[in-house]
Amino acid sequence: MIETDILIIGAGPTGLFTVFEAGLLKLKCHIIDGLPQPGGQLTELYPKKPIFDIPGFPSVGAGDLVDNLMEQIKQFQPGFTLNEVAETIDKLDDGTFIVTTNKGTKHHAKAVAIAAGLGSFEPRKPQLEKLSYYEDKGIEYFVKDPEVFRDKRVVIAGGGDSALDWTIYLADIAKEVSLVHRRNEFRGALDSVEKVQKLKDSGKIHLVTPAEVVDLKGDDTLDGVIIEREGEHEIIDCDYFIPLFGLTPKLGPIANWGLEIEKNAIKVNNALDYQTNIEGVYAIGDINTYPGKLKLILCGFHEATLMCQSVYNRLNPGKKYVLKYTTVSGINGFDGSRKEAEKAVVKSID
Amino acid sequence: MIETDILIIGAGPTGLFTVFEAGLLKLKCHIIDGLPQPGGQLTELYPKKPIFDIPGFPSVGAGDLVDNLMEQIKQFQPGFTLNEVAETIDKLDDGTFIVTTNKGTKHHAKAVAIAAGLGSFEPRKPQLEKLSYYEDKGIEYFVKDPEVFRDKRVVIAGGGDSALDWTIYLADIAKEVSLVHRRNEFRGALDSVEKVQKLKDSGKIHLVTPAEVVDLKGDDTLDGVIIEREGEHEIIDCDYFIPLFGLTPKLGPIANWGLEIEKNAIKVNNALDYQTNIEGVYAIGDINTYPGKLKLILCGFHEATLMCQSVYNRLNPGKKYVLKYTTVSGINGFDGSRKEAEKAVVKSID
Repeated sequence: MIETDILIIGAGPTGLFTVFEAGLLKLKCHIIDGLPQPGGQLTELYPKKPIFDIPGFPSVGAGDLVDNLMEQIKQFQPGFTLNEVAETIDKLDDGTFIVTTNKGTKHHAKAVAIAAGLGSFEPRKPQLEKLSYYEDKGIEYFVKDPEVFRDKRVVIAGGGDSALDWTIYLADIAKEVSLVHRRNEFRGALDSVEKVQKLKDSGKIHLVTPAEVVDLKGDDTLDGVIIEREGEHEIIDCDYFIPLFGLTPKLGPIANWGLEIEKNAIKVNNALDYQTNIEGVYAIGDINTYPGKLKLILCGFHEATLMCQSVYNRLNPGKKYVLKYTTVSGINGFDGSRKEAEKAVVKSID
Repeated sequence: MIETDILIIGAGPTGLFTVFEAGLLKLKCHIIDGLPQPGGQLTELYPKKPIFDIPGFPSVGAGDLVDNLMEQIKQFQPGFTLNEVAETIDKLDDGTFIVTTNKGTKHHAKAVAIAAGLGSFEPRKPQLEKLSYYEDKGIEYFVKDPEVFRDKRVVIAGGGDSALDWTIYLADIAKEVSLVHRRNEFRGALDSVEKVQKLKDSGKIHLVTPAEVVDLKGDDTLDGVIIEREGEHEIIDCDYFIPLFGLTPKLGPIANWGLEIEKNAIKVNNALDYQTNIEGVYAIGDINTYPGKLKLILCGFHEATLMCQSVYNRLNPGKKYVLKYTTVSGINGFDGSRKEAEKAVVKSID
């Protein structure tokens, strides 16, 4: 059982920044995310793209913003349960919560902050009869750990950035990479398309276009895919098939937690502290809705901050501690570190 | 008469960022501030100190944050009325406003955003009989333009960072600098104290301690100050006297605008759009109050954003335009510039 003060569902920018504001109030955080790495959409969908509306950054790469946030919170030592989706929530008699993931990991927390953005990202799956049988037996929808594919034969399907990027990345790691796409045209960063062209020209990858994977084979585990190219069928022997047809955000299991939901967003009772209809459960960032709501990262930062203050007040009734200017108060990390502005000296001149 | 869409009172971080969000909605902004430069407290009180709680910045110098914000908004070409304090507001029949400063500058705006932080900074003045007579005739409380003091004889009084910093700066510009302080001990950055010690040792400045300015002289304009040191009186001939005894924030003239005020802060009727009791007048950042309010820069950024959306909706009834991800929409500057994420290409690989 993982114990924490605030359990955060979602490791996007809002979830990450929550760790910082909670830390200032001496509250510990643990984050659950279905993706293999922190950052949410920013890392998974557009890590190299610039964001122009983060205050104080005329332009910042989405991946860089996530790196900065990870650096900003590291002194508060957040825990992470990655690659797992929060599935059920139980409220105990003492007002605390147990959240269990799809893989059975249990988390016990004093408050829950749902910062799940558009929801959990689920892969768009190809329509193949034996697909579910081979899941975890050779079919992967995310590259969680590239080392899994070292010296293996890999078939990637798709025509967008993910398919291009992983083809480039795995070309150096896997024994054999085949990229299957139903058109000759790819849609992605110019740089990536050009790199794949070079890999193909130098024979480092097989480009199989225009073609589609139409069947899967293998006794116990996957050992090949059947493709159709211009009416003909071929077999490509492989250890792994990675269909990369994009992600669809789904509210997912949290839709069944008894929260008030309106147009795929969680209603927070007011703009006071972003609490939901379940006391002790908050919703912050793009996942919530209230009158005047704007789905912007900078709004998630503010919501996270007010929410942390509310959690503090709830856990420490009667105590008065308010988030203050860090320039004046400094920051005490949970790792024993201390950050502070240089103090003025009092010194005589003579 | 200066014409604008949103008139912002206060050029601190919240006021500056307002220009950006307004710009995304094609609204023009003009900013009034009593200080000689943008940045509010950050520039005036602690430009070199680090801030640790701006999301995405593990640490950022206050002055650097202001520079970044100025860079982020420059494409939206804000106007500035600096060195002037907003004094009166008149609501016209058409719902627009005229705001007049203490120097008589008139601004006509469709909406007013009060982002005045702790209020306007007023200098703490020494208790001297003829003080007000010599104001603007040799007495200055701010160094608005250092060039004014070139080749002049200047007396600075005070024992803190401002007194130290301006002594160092003006030592190279003025003909003569005397620093008067009632103690031998100074309170400031170690680096500044050491620099002043060196300037004194090398005879580039006069250090007059422990001493106090007790009287002023001069027929039409100031031509000297009388100091008392250990019971003795001396005259220091000078062209300028700059008492730097710190600043006190005062709500100032906006206290008389008919706004609902609670503990020196302006009540906003709810946390929806940060509008005050006067329709079309908003209060954002540290100057406002509402249940759960935290006086943090990041909260001002969020409030500014929701406020701009509200102004847009008020000025464009029935039109639907909502602030969107800049990564997707890009940014069109009022100066004809365009910022956008690199577009995906569609390109065949063969």
